[in-house]
Amino acid sequence: MEQDVFRLHYEATQARVEEALREQIGRMGRYADLREAMEYSLMAGGKRIRPVLVLESCRMCGGDPETALPFACAVEMIHTYSLIHDDLPAMDDDELRRGRPTNHMVYGEATAILAGDGLLTAAFQALTQADLTAQQRVDAVACLSLAAGPEGMVGGQAMDMAGEGRSLTRSELEQLQSLKTGALIAAAAELGCIAAGGSPEQREAVRRYAQCLGRAFQVQDDILDVTSTDEELGKPTGSDREKEKNTFVSLLGLERSRELVEELTAQAVAALDGFSSRDFLVWLANTLAQRTK
Amino acid sequence: MEQDVFRLHYEATQARVEEALREQIGRMGRYADLREAMEYSLMAGGKRIRPVLVLESCRMCGGDPETALPFACAVEMIHTYSLIHDDLPAMDDDELRRGRPTNHMVYGEATAILAGDGLLTAAFQALTQADLTAQQRVDAVACLSLAAGPEGMVGGQAMDMAGEGRSLTRSELEQLQSLKTGALIAAAAELGCIAAGGSPEQREAVRRYAQCLGRAFQVQDDILDVTSTDEELGKPTGSDREKEKNTFVSLLGLERSRELVEELTAQAVAALDGFSSRDFLVWLANTLAQRTK
Repeated sequence: MEQDVFRLHYEATQARVEEALREQIGRMGRYADLREAMEYSLMAGGKRIRPVLVLESCRMCGGDPETALPFACAVEMIHTYSLIHDDLPAMDDDELRRGRPTNHMVYGEATAILAGDGLLTAAFQALTQADLTAQQRVDAVACLSLAAGPEGMVGGQAMDMAGEGRSLTRSELEQLQSLKTGALIAAAAELGCIAAGGSPEQREAVRRYAQCLGRAFQVQDDILDVTSTDEELGKPTGSDREKEKNTFVSLLGLERSRELVEELTAQAVAALDGFSSRDFLVWLANTLAQRTK
Repeated sequence: MEQDVFRLHYEATQARVEEALREQIGRMGRYADLREAMEYSLMAGGKRIRPVLVLESCRMCGGDPETALPFACAVEMIHTYSLIHDDLPAMDDDELRRGRPTNHMVYGEATAILAGDGLLTAAFQALTQADLTAQQRVDAVACLSLAAGPEGMVGGQAMDMAGEGRSLTRSELEQLQSLKTGALIAAAAELGCIAAGGSPEQREAVRRYAQCLGRAFQVQDDILDVTSTDEELGKPTGSDREKEKNTFVSLLGLERSRELVEELTAQAVAALDGFSSRDFLVWLANTLAQRTK
């Protein structure tokens, strides 16, 4: 019963995010097929975990989630651009994403590169549009640019490209993933706290929660790549092995990977000890750990 | 004699920009060959017109150029990322830039894409690091993201890609160029004014100056592509015609294009009427109009 309430709340929050993203898209890129290409990937569904994390972190830190909506959109725009560029022939060369042809398969490589560049740039514009103080907005820009840039997500992707075809140690793989996916998930939680005007201690706590959540999410992703069917996942399974990608499953085996997801989820939940209204984010961590797609 | 003074000042300002860019690079991207790839293109010289424009616009509006240095770096990082992505095989497919192999020729396509993404993201981080008020920094993020994004530079590049192989009208070409190159040059001048705490009227005036300067610069670029030698230009001349690029020369002819450069330069200079210390930027407009490379 309680589970249903959280599930419904998640869906309602997703719907609010979809609406806000649609408004963002409406503002940008009237030229050639650029807007259509950005919209194709941005509105392709997905779990919207990062923007939901922004909004719920904001709520938990005592803020009004509505004020954090531009921050939530910005994070999802960054995430979407990274998928578009990662799928390019020069990168992972993927033809399917969420069960649909990838951006460059539909719009061509040039437009896909530009759609990514456009979403990345527009994300920072979205941050400036929040109805918050200038200090909060500039803190958000600093936080998101650090997480998404050469010292964060882009750095992780560069490590990933360089590491293909050779075996990584566990600590190398953990560093790679903490940059490639963890940094942006942590930034999402921090952005919510910034929007709420939270304390440095709150920001540190939600960051720790999100870091553990992000790591658990990545390990679970690696597990699903070998245990799920193509149809469940919306993309070809087994692709990690085929590309000789370094994964937690290839490094630790399936059983140890499953234990790791549980451990990390418990750590994520523990990080929220100091918050009175943490129930939704606790549920989210547990739910993501048990997901099958 | 006076010309020499301005020339020396330009060179000193360029040197200050180089130094600040090197500091920026030192902060980012320790992973794989990402920093090296970003540095390769960012430190490849060039005229540094945009960052010089930031600093000199700041000075003319009554500010201290030193405070505008992070803004100047940010604009040059955006400009550099756009060159890296524009040169990619899926875009203009250029092998030479400023007399050296393009980024992807040296580091491969994947790293070149990531180096561009990294510079674009780090540019916004640089804006947040300026020793200015939060309001000034957030104004700078809003200004630069608008100019560089889907409604500005990226939109222009999308138009350019879509227009290849067919003839554009003059007004289409002007719109394309005002987005593709003009928006960022205008933003450079505006960022200087923001750093100086200039008035809305000052901001509008420097914007008009830079828009005219940017248009003149582009027309002159088109002229040099047909009149210069490969060696002078540091890249193959005649490449516009070879790729059936729409240029002002192909549209208006050489003589009318030269007149247009003069007209636009005069308009740029006229926009500065209200400023007492406008001499350097007047010289800059005239010097760029007469450049041979």
